[in-house]
Amino acid sequence: MFNFKIIFKGLGFLLIVESIAMAIAMVVSFLYGEPDSNAFIIASGVSLAVGLTTLLATRKASKEMGKREGFVLVSLVWVVFSIFGSIPYLLSGAIPNITDAFFETMSGFTTTGSSILNNIEELPHGILFWRSITQWLGGMGIIVLSLAILPIFGIGGMQLYMAEVPGPSPDKISPKIRQTAKTLWGIYLLFTATETILLFLGGMSFFDAICHSFTTMATGGFSTKQASIAHWNSPFIQYVIILFMLFAGTNFSLSYCALQGKFRKVFKDEEFKYYLIFILGFLILIFVGLLITSGLRVENAFRSALFQVVSIITTTGYVTTDYLLWHPTLIVLIFTLFFFGGSAGSTGGGIKIMRIVILMKNSYYELKRMVHPNAIIPVRFNKHTVDSKIVTNVLAFFIIYFLIFILSTIIFTFIEPDLESSMGAVATCLGNIGPGIGNVGPAETFSHIPAGGKWFLSFLMLLGRLELFTVLVLFSVSFWKD
Amino acid sequence: MFNFKIIFKGLGFLLIVESIAMAIAMVVSFLYGEPDSNAFIIASGVSLAVGLTTLLATRKASKEMGKREGFVLVSLVWVVFSIFGSIPYLLSGAIPNITDAFFETMSGFTTTGSSILNNIEELPHGILFWRSITQWLGGMGIIVLSLAILPIFGIGGMQLYMAEVPGPSPDKISPKIRQTAKTLWGIYLLFTATETILLFLGGMSFFDAICHSFTTMATGGFSTKQASIAHWNSPFIQYVIILFMLFAGTNFSLSYCALQGKFRKVFKDEEFKYYLIFILGFLILIFVGLLITSGLRVENAFRSALFQVVSIITTTGYVTTDYLLWHPTLIVLIFTLFFFGGSAGSTGGGIKIMRIVILMKNSYYELKRMVHPNAIIPVRFNKHTVDSKIVTNVLAFFIIYFLIFILSTIIFTFIEPDLESSMGAVATCLGNIGPGIGNVGPAETFSHIPAGGKWFLSFLMLLGRLELFTVLVLFSVSFWKD
Repeated sequence: MFNFKIIFKGLGFLLIVESIAMAIAMVVSFLYGEPDSNAFIIASGVSLAVGLTTLLATRKASKEMGKREGFVLVSLVWVVFSIFGSIPYLLSGAIPNITDAFFETMSGFTTTGSSILNNIEELPHGILFWRSITQWLGGMGIIVLSLAILPIFGIGGMQLYMAEVPGPSPDKISPKIRQTAKTLWGIYLLFTATETILLFLGGMSFFDAICHSFTTMATGGFSTKQASIAHWNSPFIQYVIILFMLFAGTNFSLSYCALQGKFRKVFKDEEFKYYLIFILGFLILIFVGLLITSGLRVENAFRSALFQVVSIITTTGYVTTDYLLWHPTLIVLIFTLFFFGGSAGSTGGGIKIMRIVILMKNSYYELKRMVHPNAIIPVRFNKHTVDSKIVTNVLAFFIIYFLIFILSTIIFTFIEPDLESSMGAVATCLGNIGPGIGNVGPAETFSHIPAGGKWFLSFLMLLGRLELFTVLVLFSVSFWKD
Repeated sequence: MFNFKIIFKGLGFLLIVESIAMAIAMVVSFLYGEPDSNAFIIASGVSLAVGLTTLLATRKASKEMGKREGFVLVSLVWVVFSIFGSIPYLLSGAIPNITDAFFETMSGFTTTGSSILNNIEELPHGILFWRSITQWLGGMGIIVLSLAILPIFGIGGMQLYMAEVPGPSPDKISPKIRQTAKTLWGIYLLFTATETILLFLGGMSFFDAICHSFTTMATGGFSTKQASIAHWNSPFIQYVIILFMLFAGTNFSLSYCALQGKFRKVFKDEEFKYYLIFILGFLILIFVGLLITSGLRVENAFRSALFQVVSIITTTGYVTTDYLLWHPTLIVLIFTLFFFGGSAGSTGGGIKIMRIVILMKNSYYELKRMVHPNAIIPVRFNKHTVDSKIVTNVLAFFIIYFLIFILSTIIFTFIEPDLESSMGAVATCLGNIGPGIGNVGPAETFSHIPAGGKWFLSFLMLLGRLELFTVLVLFSVSFWKD
């Protein structure tokens, strides 16, 4: 029997959380004495009312939540949050169009960061704050999802990384999830607060500092300025953001280790090692490339390369420069980074470093296996043999990711005939990055995409954010058969 | 101990085969009374002399050929053939430049069909014949390789398809290979002869008919006309070529079954079934797309869609129209076909239908496995359970293929800054197709690519043709360690 009640119960509870977030935005709006506070009062009230009613109606639901209910709940949360979350945009008139408002909200909660706004600086503070907090909330959701729920679902190798924090065990899920979540959210909060202080000291206004800390830690990438981080020409601010993007793209379990002083454990972690190696590799290539092909001075080229590499690999999506003006080879390098993504257990999206490493190891070992067909050469990760089932699952994840990318690009060329722009829009939304290539590059927005395209891209954001499988199983026959 | 002598012995023997092919081209040249017959006399003589000398020097080599020697020999054959094979172009002055001559010859022997020639109609008959016969020989090589040698190497699922012809067993390789080769070459010859007659009846000159039969059956795609098959506006000729491209992209073991009257076996073959399904699927999409977006009449749109779909999926690369003038979505569909390829055991290149099917099945099953984590759900192919090792190998093949595609595209943007052209050139050479997209589309040639780019693309042709692994293992450390 499929337990629908427990799903509604979960949704009801979470809607109340969303209404609280809206209430905070309302306070911000109120403090600045801006008229859009009314929009937040209504939105928060509606969310609260619907949430409470749902909770009341389902108060008799059993507390047992099965795996299948989990899949459905997780997929629905992001959709429901985006529907209610677009109310403030609509009521305040900041984004009067339903499609645009939904796109912007989905882009927020999935921590993507693609935007349809062309007038960011003109928007009231409450709306800008709401925009940032949607990403921050999305990030919180992802931390629980990837460190406590996905390992139970058994999705694409998510069982593999070291869960240093007391992790959940299948028998008593809910109390353990709560415990894990609390610890990790503590770290998330600590990083956010520290970044806010540093950005404020670096010369940002307190408002901008907190908004950017929200969207950095979520690897979201929404900015309060149309020019994104390029607005601040301060190396200090840019380096601070680079540092915190790096943290946000790292497994939060590892940050927990680091905070406990267990640095050896951090640097022995294979995913973290490769994360740094990939960043270093792309940094060197792009840095040298910029020195040769652009007129930039050394520090400038270095910072520009480092910022863009870290921003894209962590799937944050801030920019300090329009990388589409770079040499074509450098653009392709940046586009290749679209298919990396953050670490597992971070707020970063995309394919994820761990999977890339397993794919590359398995491919290399396959050559060895051909030469020595009778030898057993398993893939090892963090000194443990990886079960061949997990390898197959990771490989399947990668292939489905590419299949969706290719199919979506084909479909999207109906809407956007330019192949590069189409590939860019699809890759950036599926990978939860933000800016793309072609006509959705860093200097442009998604406002010119027709409505159908925006709904399609919103779906891709959801798909990517929930590691594909969570959503895709809902479409498989065997899921609904008992 | 690595047995170098046996490798040289093999090369010596094969060089004599090449010199015979050159002698045939010389006869053609002689019959047409064209002066380039001298070039063939010298080229044939040199190949024969080198071949005989090598054979003499290695006559004491043991007859035992190990797997490792096999890898090296196979990789070297295509390189050595291309070096000697470019002599006629150089000596006759048809292609005076070494880079261009090597590119054209490698494109021939790998049955790719990409060309640097802008003046095909001006070339003498001997040279055109040589160009066609390089592909036909390459096709013969591929048949033996894929049906008799690769299964022994254990490359990417090549063990899977039904080898109806008495196949080789690891204990007595050489006599069995010879036997398999003879049977399959008989079929190859039969198809070639039949197509020649049909094309001749359709109105082609006998010379053009035989040249095109050579390059159809090899899924090569070299034409004796600059406009490729578009030169003949005859539906009959185009349908005949479509039919024989279909045969050439089918496992030759299945054709053997069909010739024995075992049709049930043919239509129960899963790879063949999916081969037809993919063709039908893309045909419908492109046919309907053409009807909507172009002013073509029904039969014309149908034939145009069918011809291009079959030509690209079989990796032949003939064209009857410039598909880059189609609607962007249709171009992306065609480009997607670049990553399919013919059936295993055919002369077609690319990833191959069998691998695509296994990838798709495994991905779908992975969703099932997530819902039922304790169930054992193996991939089945042709009603047999596929060993999980083979699945992993096929997945690794696919990932390495994409990795090479992406890396090569990045490297190639140094040479060709346009991303689309770069992707097109790399994909078409790696998949042994012929024309690409961007500035290497059907209406253009590869002549404008700088020398470095041509050598790079030649290497990709070789890599793709030898199923990646054959070449890549040579670069792995464990291959050379004893």
